[in-house]
Parts: sequence; C-alpha cells; structure tokens
Amino acid sequence: MAKLRAVLIGATGLAGQQFIAGLKDHPHFELTGLAASPRSAGKSYREALRTSNGMLGWFVPEPLPEAVAGMKVVNGNEVQAKDFDIAFSAVESDVAREVEPRLARDIPVFSAASAFRYDEDVPLLLPPVNAEHAPLVREQQRRRGWKGFIVPIANCTTTGLAITLAPLVERFGVKAVMMTSMQAISGAGRSPGVIGLDILDNVIPYIPKEEQKVEVETKKILGTLGAEGASLTPYEVKVSCTCTRVAVLEGHTEAVFVSLGRKATVEEVVSAMREWQGAQAARGLPGAPPRWIEVLDDPFRPQPRLDRDTHDGMVTTVGRVREDGVLENGFKYVLVSHNTKMGAARGTILVAELMHAQGLLG
Amino acid sequence: MAKLRAVLIGATGLAGQQFIAGLKDHPHFELTGLAASPRSAGKSYREALRTSNGMLGWFVPEPLPEAVAGMKVVNGNEVQAKDFDIAFSAVESDVAREVEPRLARDIPVFSAASAFRYDEDVPLLLPPVNAEHAPLVREQQRRRGWKGFIVPIANCTTTGLAITLAPLVERFGVKAVMMTSMQAISGAGRSPGVIGLDILDNVIPYIPKEEQKVEVETKKILGTLGAEGASLTPYEVKVSCTCTRVAVLEGHTEAVFVSLGRKATVEEVVSAMREWQGAQAARGLPGAPPRWIEVLDDPFRPQPRLDRDTHDGMVTTVGRVREDGVLENGFKYVLVSHNTKMGAARGTILVAELMHAQGLLG
Amino acid sequence: MAKLRAVLIGATGLAGQQFIAGLKDHPHFELTGLAASPRSAGKSYREALRTSNGMLGWFVPEPLPEAVAGMKVVNGNEVQAKDFDIAFSAVESDVAREVEPRLARDIPVFSAASAFRYDEDVPLLLPPVNAEHAPLVREQQRRRGWKGFIVPIANCTTTGLAITLAPLVERFGVKAVMMTSMQAISGAGRSPGVIGLDILDNVIPYIPKEEQKVEVETKKILGTLGAEGASLTPYEVKVSCTCTRVAVLEGHTEAVFVSLGRKATVEEVVSAMREWQGAQAARGLPGAPPRWIEVLDDPFRPQPRLDRDTHDGMVTTVGRVREDGVLENGFKYVLVSHNTKMGAARGTILVAELMHAQGLLG
Amino acid sequence: MAKLRAVLIGATGLAGQQFIAGLKDHPHFELTGLAASPRSAGKSYREALRTSNGMLGWFVPEPLPEAVAGMKVVNGNEVQAKDFDIAFSAVESDVAREVEPRLARDIPVFSAASAFRYDEDVPLLLPPVNAEHAPLVREQQRRRGWKGFIVPIANCTTTGLAITLAPLVERFGVKAVMMTSMQAISGAGRSPGVIGLDILDNVIPYIPKEEQKVEVETKKILGTLGAEGASLTPYEVKVSCTCTRVAVLEGHTEAVFVSLGRKATVEEVVSAMREWQGAQAARGLPGAPPRWIEVLDDPFRPQPRLDRDTHDGMVTTVGRVREDGVLENGFKYVLVSHNTKMGAARGTILVAELMHAQGLLG
Repeated sequence: MAKLRAVLIGATGLAGQQFIAGLKDHPHFELTGLAASPRSAGKSYREALRTSNGMLGWFVPEPLPEAVAGMKVVNGNEVQAKDFDIAFSAVESDVAREVEPRLARDIPVFSAASAFRYDEDVPLLLPPVNAEHAPLVREQQRRRGWKGFIVPIANCTTTGLAITLAPLVERFGVKAVMMTSMQAISGAGRSPGVIGLDILDNVIPYIPKEEQKVEVETKKILGTLGAEGASLTPYEVKVSCTCTRVAVLEGHTEAVFVSLGRKATVEEVVSAMREWQGAQAARGLPGAPPRWIEVLDDPFRPQPRLDRDTHDGMVTTVGRVREDGVLENGFKYVLVSHNTKMGAARGTILVAELMHAQGLLG
Repeated sequence: MAKLRAVLIGATGLAGQQFIAGLKDHPHFELTGLAASPRSAGKSYREALRTSNGMLGWFVPEPLPEAVAGMKVVNGNEVQAKDFDIAFSAVESDVAREVEPRLARDIPVFSAASAFRYDEDVPLLLPPVNAEHAPLVREQQRRRGWKGFIVPIANCTTTGLAITLAPLVERFGVKAVMMTSMQAISGAGRSPGVIGLDILDNVIPYIPKEEQKVEVETKKILGTLGAEGASLTPYEVKVSCTCTRVAVLEGHTEAVFVSLGRKATVEEVVSAMREWQGAQAARGLPGAPPRWIEVLDDPFRPQPRLDRDTHDGMVTTVGRVREDGVLENGFKYVLVSHNTKMGAARGTILVAELMHAQGLLG
Repeated sequence: MAKLRAVLIGATGLAGQQFIAGLKDHPHFELTGLAASPRSAGKSYREALRTSNGMLGWFVPEPLPEAVAGMKVVNGNEVQAKDFDIAFSAVESDVAREVEPRLARDIPVFSAASAFRYDEDVPLLLPPVNAEHAPLVREQQRRRGWKGFIVPIANCTTTGLAITLAPLVERFGVKAVMMTSMQAISGAGRSPGVIGLDILDNVIPYIPKEEQKVEVETKKILGTLGAEGASLTPYEVKVSCTCTRVAVLEGHTEAVFVSLGRKATVEEVVSAMREWQGAQAARGLPGAPPRWIEVLDDPFRPQPRLDRDTHDGMVTTVGRVREDGVLENGFKYVLVSHNTKMGAARGTILVAELMHAQGLLG
Repeated sequence: MAKLRAVLIGATGLAGQQFIAGLKDHPHFELTGLAASPRSAGKSYREALRTSNGMLGWFVPEPLPEAVAGMKVVNGNEVQAKDFDIAFSAVESDVAREVEPRLARDIPVFSAASAFRYDEDVPLLLPPVNAEHAPLVREQQRRRGWKGFIVPIANCTTTGLAITLAPLVERFGVKAVMMTSMQAISGAGRSPGVIGLDILDNVIPYIPKEEQKVEVETKKILGTLGAEGASLTPYEVKVSCTCTRVAVLEGHTEAVFVSLGRKATVEEVVSAMREWQGAQAARGLPGAPPRWIEVLDDPFRPQPRLDRDTHDGMVTTVGRVREDGVLENGFKYVLVSHNTKMGAARGTILVAELMHAQGLLG
C-alpha cells in the first residue's frame, strides 16, 4: 500500500526536528513536505537550519537524514492541503490557531500544540488509554464542516501521569491525584528555552500554565465518550500539582500521590500497572513498545537519565510504589516519561498510527 | 562574661568544617578543642585536612580560620569532658552512639547526628518552633543520671518543613502534610557523598531512611511538652513524603501540600507565615535572622541558588502559595531551606544559643 | 567632596545590574540616572525589570537596592550629558556605537562594550597593568574635539590573562602565549545567553570573535604609550588561543603556556606573580584588592567555584605553575578570573576610580 | 570457528561493566568467566552488583545481559588460566601488577590498567596507529618465559590525541604538541569517582599523574619497532599538557596546538585527517568504525555530548582546525574522544581483535 504523503508544519524548531527523526523510514507516512516561517521558505532544509555564525542547528541525537536535508522548505501559510494526505504540526500555539484549521478543512492534522486541546469536539488522544475517543473526530467534522480534523496530543507532563493512572482507574477507580513534577529543560525548546544561568545548580519552581494543563487534560484523557460519539464526559477525579524545572536534559520525573476508589495493597497496585496492556487498538502499532509501563524494583529507580530511553522513549517507567498514609486508600510512586519522545513528536505520530489502524484517516 | 569552652567532635568532615565556620567569632562559645578519628589525632587541623595528593580538604566557602588551622586534633575517644563546657558533634550516627553519651555524663552535647533523635527523653529542638521543649533535658538528666545531656537537631529536610508548618499549626491547625523534596547533594557529605556520574543530568528518586525521618520528626517537633516536663506528645498530623535528590549544590526545595484545620484564604496563609515571629526565646539569638520565614511574591521563587543564603542561610523562603483543591482546606506552596546552614551546623549552634539564653547550660 | 553624578546606560541587562551592585555606596560615584531601551523608559527600575509573567528579572546575588528600585528609567537616546558628571555603559556594541560618542562629547564614558576598544586613540585600561596609558584620553579629546572621552575595558577573557602576564613581562619578558579558556556562561548574558540544552553535560568549543579579541587586546594592554602620549605601541608577543564554554556559572578558567624572554625557575615565576603589586596609581583604589594575583599551592586549585570570589572577585588566582618543556623558557599555569566582576562591571568602575585618582575626570 | 573463551578480571567495576557491554555477541570472544574481589566471589554477577540498600549497581546504558547476570563470580586470585583462551583486565593498577603476570604465563591478557604500559617489552597498541608494534609480544614472551603476554591500552586521554596526530606524523611530521584537556568524570569511575560537590558549577584543573601519562604514551604509541622486533624507539616529539576535569559525563575534549615538520595549509591538515585510513590490519575489525577520524565543518563542533557516540564511540571527532601563529608551522584544533569506549573497554577489545586477526593469539 502506498504511504500517506505527510507535510510537517514547523519543521525547523526542536519539536519539528524530533518529528523528522520519528518519521524516518516510517511504514505508513512519508514526509513529502516541510514548512516553516517565511524566513526559511525557499531554502533547503539544511540551509534553513544553519545559523548566521555557521552552526548547523540540528539538535536531536539521531543524524539529519540526507533526503530531508535536501528538501525545500515552504512557507507554512502557503502549504496546499491538496498536495498531502495528512499533516503533522510542531508549531507554537498562536501559529497553530491559524494554520491548523486551514489544513484541517481537507486533511487530518496531528498536532503537538495546545491550541485546540480543550475544544469540546476535539479528542485528546493517548492511544493506550483512550483509543476509543478517536471517533469524536466525526463529530468535529460534522460541526465544523471539515473533511479533515485536528487531533492534538496532551501536554508532555500529562502523558506519563495519565498512562500510569489508567490501569489504576480500570482496576480500582481513582478519586484524587497530587503530583509534583521535576521537568527536563528540553520541553521548553530552544528559543529561548531554559537558559543555563537559570537552571545550573538550581530548581525553578514554576512553569507558567503547566499545572492547569495537567489538571484539565488528565480528566479529559481518562473521560468517556458518550454513546452517540458526540461528546466526552471528563473522568471525575481531583487533580492538584506543582510543576518544577530541574537540571535534566530530557525526561520528566513525577512524584505522584493517588487516592484509589477502594482498598488495595502495594502488590495489587504494582500488578495492575505491570499487567496493563492498554487499548487493544494501540497494541502492535509501529511506534508501540512491548508494554506501556515498566515497574522497576530497584528503589533508586526510575531515574530520568537511566530510564527515559526505555524502548525508544515510549515506555513510562515507574518505581517506589508505596502506601501513602494520608489519602484514603492512598499510594505514592515515582514515574519517568520521555517528554520529547512519547510526550511530543513520537507520541503524536503514534496517534496518527492509531487512527490509521482504525481506518479514520481516509 | 567568659565564653564557654567548646569541643567539636568530628571536626574534619564536611559537617565539622561547617561548625568551624559557624563558630568563628561566636559571642558565647569558643572552640578550644577539635576531635576526629585516630587517623587525624596528633596532627594540626590543617595537616589533618590535607590529602595524600596535596589537596587541602577544606570545602566550605568561608576561609579556614588561621587560629583553628593550627590547633592540634585529638582522638575523639580521648576527649575529656572536664576540659570543656559544651560539645558540638558532627559525627556519623554510629560514632555518635558511642561518643555522645560518654561526654553527656558531664557536659551538654549538641549534635547534628540522628542517633538519639527518637529517644523519649530527648527533645528535638528547632528554636523558633519549640523552644519550650528544652526543659525535657532535665528529665533526661534525671533518668540517665547525667550532669550533661544530648540535644540533637532535626534532619535537614524536616527543618524547613516544620518551620513553615508552625505558623499554620498555630493559626489554623494542620491535619495532613504531603511533601516532595528536591534535595541538594551537600547533604550527603563527601565520603562518598553523591557522585557526579549519578547526579549530572539526573534525579535520584530515593534517599534511604529520609522519608521516615521527616514523617516522625515533624510530629515530634510540633508536639507538646507535658505539664510536668517529663514527656512529649507528638502533634497529631498525617505526614507523607517522597524525597529525591537533584543536581543542586546547597539548599533543599520542597513542594508541600497541606490540609488545614479550618477554612482559610491564600492571603490568610501568607499572612500567617509573614507575621509569625516564632518563640519569644529564640528571637534575637546571635544566629537568629530578623524573621524565620520570608514569603516571596515572584512566582518563580523560591529557587535554591538564589534564595538559600538569605540571612546567612537561616531563613526559610516560601513562594507559590495556592489553594490545592484536593485536600480538605488544602493549600500548596514551595519552600527552600539551607540544608547545611539552618539545617545542620548553624542550626545546631542556634540550639546551643537558645539553651544558653534559657540558662539551661549551667 | 561631593560625589560625581553617574548615569548608567543599559541598566536593565545583566551587565547593567552588575554595575548597580558594584556602585552601591560607592565613595566617589553616585548613581543618579538609569537609562535603557524605549520599552523600559518611563517605568520605575523595578517595573522595568519585571517580565510579563510576574518574574522580577533581577539576577545578581546582591539584593536590588531599594533606592535604585524606585528610580525612573529613561530612554538611552534621551540622556542629557549636562545632567551627569560621568557615564557607565553596559550596552551591546551596536548601541554603544551610537550612544557612547554622543555622551563623550561632554563627559567621560566608561564602558564594558567592545565598540571602541580597537581605536588608536582609545586606551584599554587595566589599572594595575597599564595605568600610565590613561593620558591617551587627552589625545582622544584633541582629535575628536570632545570634552569627555570613552574608555572601554578589555574582554573578560583577556583580563585575567593580561594581569598574570604583566609581572612576567616586567621581570622576564614574554615572547609567546598560548591559552585555552574554559569560560563561564554568565559572560553570554541572558538574551539569549547560553541555553541549558547546549551546555549541560557538554563543552562548546567555540565562542565567536573571542579568540581574536584576546589576541589583539593582550598586546594593546601590555603596550607602551609613546613619549608624547599620542599613541600606543603594542607589546611584541605572539598570542594564540582556543576559547571554549563549560558548564560553570561564573569565573573563567584559563590554561596558559608562556614562553619567557629569558631562563627562569618555577620559583622565580611564582615569586614574580606573588610579589607583583601593579601600578602604584592603582593601589588602594576603592575597588582594589590587597594584591592583584594570588598564587595557590594546592595543586587542585584554582577552581572557578571556589576561587572566583576571592576579594569580591577582583583577584586573579593562579595555580599549577610548572615548566612546559615545549616552548623556549616555557612555563604553564592555570588561572581563574571572575568574568563579571573584575572582568566586567567592577573592573569598569575600577577604571573610573583610577582616572578619578589621576585627576583625569575633571 | 569456535569462539575464544574469555575471562574478565575486575568484572564488577564500571570498567568491567563496559567490557561486558562491549563483549555482548562478540564474533570472536565469548565471556565464560567473571572474576572480582573476594567480597563478590561465589555470588551470581547480578547479586555481586547489588548494594546493601537494594540498588542494582549496573551503570552502563546498555542493559545487563541476562546470561551474564546469572554467571557466578570467582575470586580474581583463583582464576585458572587453563580454563580460558584469553583474559581481559579491568582492575586497578596495583591489582593488575599481581594478577596479570600470573595469567600471562599461559594466556594473552588485554588490559585497561596502566601497570605495564611503560615496560620496554610491552607494546602500547592503538590499532589504527601502530598495529605493527604487535609482534613485540614475541620479545616479551621470550624475555619473560611466558606462553601468553600482556598488552595494555593507552590512557583514555592519550588515545584521541595519538589518533589525530598519526595522520599528521605520516604526512608532515610533528615536532611539538601542546594540549589542554577538558575531561569527563566517567574516567574516574565510581569509587569514589568525582563527587558531585566538586564538579557541579566547576572545573578541577588537576588530574594526578594524567599529564605525564599522556606525554610518555604519545611518544611510545607513535614510535617505531626495531627491525628485529625487540624494541621500540619512541617518536621524537615534545609534548606538554594541562589536564582538567569538567562537568561532562562522557567524552574527553582536547584543545590541541601542534607544530608540524613542514609548511602546510589548513586544507592540507584537514585532508590528512579525513583521508587517513590507519593501519591496514585494523580496518574491518569487528569494532572498527568506517573511518577513525571525522572532521566536522560546523565551528561549534565537536561537542562531547553531541559527538562522543559517533559510531559507537569508536570515532575521534575533530573540528576548528586553524593556523596557530605561535608555533613553527603551527596549527590548532579541538577533538572529542569517547573515554570509556574507544578510550577503555571497547578500545581494549579492539586490540584483542587486531591480534586475533594478526594470528598472534594462538
């Protein structure tokens, strides 16, 4: 079967580079278009990356694919939907608000931006957790009169949290979640990103808007699609968090306290996570790891540097599962999730893979 | 008035060096004896610090006082209580268990070690919070037949937490506390301490025994001394924490969630902390800062690198006070406390200053 | 005597903040004007620092002086020389090229910018090394028809190198210098500065233009003012360097190899540095340390974190003086110099102090 | 052909773990024995790694192979040469001095330890550079009456330097080398290694004995084996270096100044490195990369974090090739070399592969 022709909007930024690495040799999607700001338009991708002082601004660890390096970059505002089958979007929210709806009139748009996450007719897909929310795009198409649609992914800090809560929701119910994150600096990108003077020998205890995102998105992701597929009912759970930034390059660490819906033991909580396979529809996707959660026995794990890259950064690692003693049926644990792989570009590609498998891309 | 002659046990380690810096030009205590392991005994202090490859192993930022550099180090087991009025102890717990009681038969021992923290007749003094626990040493002397006594300080992670809870306990009552710490590496000392390979670009989610210490010590510090001064009733509060290590040199950061005993507003919580002056007996001690807690309005504060040294590291800085939404009357905030100043050597000296002011040293 | 009224151009940037800290309670200069970009003009200094998300953008360790916080910021282009006796400049080079000459028509301008460093009639003053170059400003005034003048300081990487070479030049002569720097990130400022993603767990082997600056400036600083005070003859020395950036907040480390003009021993080289007092005119200035160079015996020193703040960051610390074995009369050593104190704001203020003492400000 | 049975001495340390990762699925060598200190003897390898507080002390990024995890560790002093065909040694120098000669009586020993590097009859093999030195082991066997032999590899800091010098020696001759290293902390291992308190926000300007090792080893590696194969004549070159430690996990960066034997251009120097293929005997070995040196055009490269893992850490990356201006026919460049891959375990395995290919193992 022919691969779908994919255009990448926001190709030169750090997130865009991660899409390029994630789409290399993809079985279903072929990158046939690259778009960026007018400043880059008309240049080859390699030239668009180069800064005035000679630096090749390619920052992901995987090498820049030669085929992509030679592609010509177009102005994001001039991308024609008719030339592509799907679009991936790695732009900032304000740009997303302009470009994504224009393309979604005709083709599916998979986005790492937050612009449309909270719209009623937009599913927030995390494939192993809520693959069954995907048909909400039909409602979105109906309401907006689009042939395509927009599906954003969750904030990178929400992703690991929601994945580890999913098996607990299924087996015990979850009443409340309190979380403190220690987030990597890669999430902030490069312009300006987190400057070295701020983060070296330091913790920054505030990431604007992050806590609200996690609180709202967690409920939406864990929610239920109504019988008629036209609306989502958020999961009823209280969520409270404190999001901080630490001197880590990649991989968010989160210390979670959770109140379950019924009594349980540490062993049962660990088993629930270990045995969880996630939605049937998400298993076996090209980007899916063998299992979504790995629970480690070593009390000194998970650590972001050692565990973030488990199965290409698509696994959420968990450790230190203990009783909490404060919350009702309270437990606590620590998780590590790769914020720029499962939590960004590769997680977005996974959503496209899911909807491809579900037959929702045509 | 003549200064009290003080001996320092464990003088060569990092904690010992911090005592030396903290006791320089002290108005009440004069360092007249230095003790360490047999390996160091007989050498001048400067020579005892020097490693085989020529490094002067003095690691605190303040310069090594010349007068101390020339003092002769004695074997800790051979220190004679009769030569001193008080002792400061910076040894490990296992050594403390041997040396501290031997000296306490005759003189007061102020210790940063955990060995005796949990004994029934031993107060865990945090001067602004529980100065009124100090007389418990009379019971300790009675029970053990000692002329001196042992008073340890709390774990460095407990200190900032207990100080910020104290005004909340006084004004609202506190029912539950959940805390995630991001601790500096200096707390682990130098032998072996936290090695660079473990902490660079990383978070270590486990510090052995730390969480239990915080949970038990918080209750004891906030407790009440019985009418007859013979026993402490711990404060009734549920405490649960997750303690992690981050790539910060000095200064523990703690993300706290707290359930108050009654309804309150963010403004009231902030006011309670800002207006709190702590125990009358602790105000104006030589090591006391103008106020014990500083609440910052900048949402990006407190940060360990920027705030740890506020008033010589004796102030606990607080920020991001918000409603929590999960706990009953729940609030959350972030604090920074200097783990090796208020949380260790200078905090121990402060306790000695308190008991000196209370007339309990004689 | 009344203090001189000083205006600070570029007050809101990191360098500007360092000037404010350095000028606090200064015996000769009083900060009576603050200037910045039009965006800040009209605001109080405190408000000009505040970012849109609530952060107070004050980044130097010393607290923001209350008196300065309340001062009104004016547009740099609208500063009137008649309102001030001298100006300090902390702007970027392109802005310096506009603003500095305009003010220099009437008053002395002391600048951390590189814009005029290489002009023939502009001395590059490093007070202990070349105080006698100061009268070149008379020639500058003559040629340009100014009542004031511009005196820039050297690049921060040149400063420590030139100071340590000066005693060697005086005693032995110096034929060649080869240097590899490991520079702190603070030198790059905050907009954008060095981003965390680039420097954590990394070394960046290139700092644009830095190497050329060091090579040219070293010769100029060590040069000789002609008899008639109208021109400088650069010192004849070959200089070659490699400048790199490392994960250090403050303090440049430089590994130096030097070829002396005649045979010497390690002891003689160390003595030359230890005994060096620098120019008579620079001794005893308000910002001058007791000595300009401190040679450490500990082979593990100097280290930037431990040694950068020696005497308020005005001392260059040196260690590891050894024979080199490759260069003729070759020696090698390591130095640490505080790049944003002696190497920037406080170093600039020191130059103003020097010329004030020399009677060249009136 | 059956694989050779290999025993690993010093299996539990960090270097030992790197050998285990490097020998996984090796085409010629099969790890059939693991030896360590008496404390580990009798335990399974997995148990020998585990610390008292539950941590699995496995620190290399590759997972611990299951087959190795279950192997029983024996006391290094009780390893019997008759059970193995070759030995790899990852022990400290003092242990090496005892164990390696005992095994070398019967089998070849390939060692990362420095104990025998400077012995006259011991080659210091760096396969692409001096494969032709290998036959010196025949002289070693003759002199010592051994059936086996000892071949150590060079210090990790020498390796990258010698590889980049080799093409310059071949094409232009090299008269002098001056080098400043910025070394990763992994080289110091874990017990105690470099502690976090020393290296965070810091540079340590001294690594005991390192500079002498580089100076002596470079000459030996680049030397010539006499006609009768009985002795090495060191290459005549002056070498001087300053070795420092920076906050980098893996990958040594070196700033090199070199004086060539004849005039050359930057382009010729770059070409010499780019075209260099190294010894014929070393090409195509299982651990050999496609080329040994990669010269990068981006002036901001090489960087240790971005370049250390080029071709599994077996390539030395070079950048910033420029004229020097001080030395005769002087050039300067920066290199990055992976200190624990090409510079340690995998580099040692490469030597064994070379001698296997040369038929010198039988």
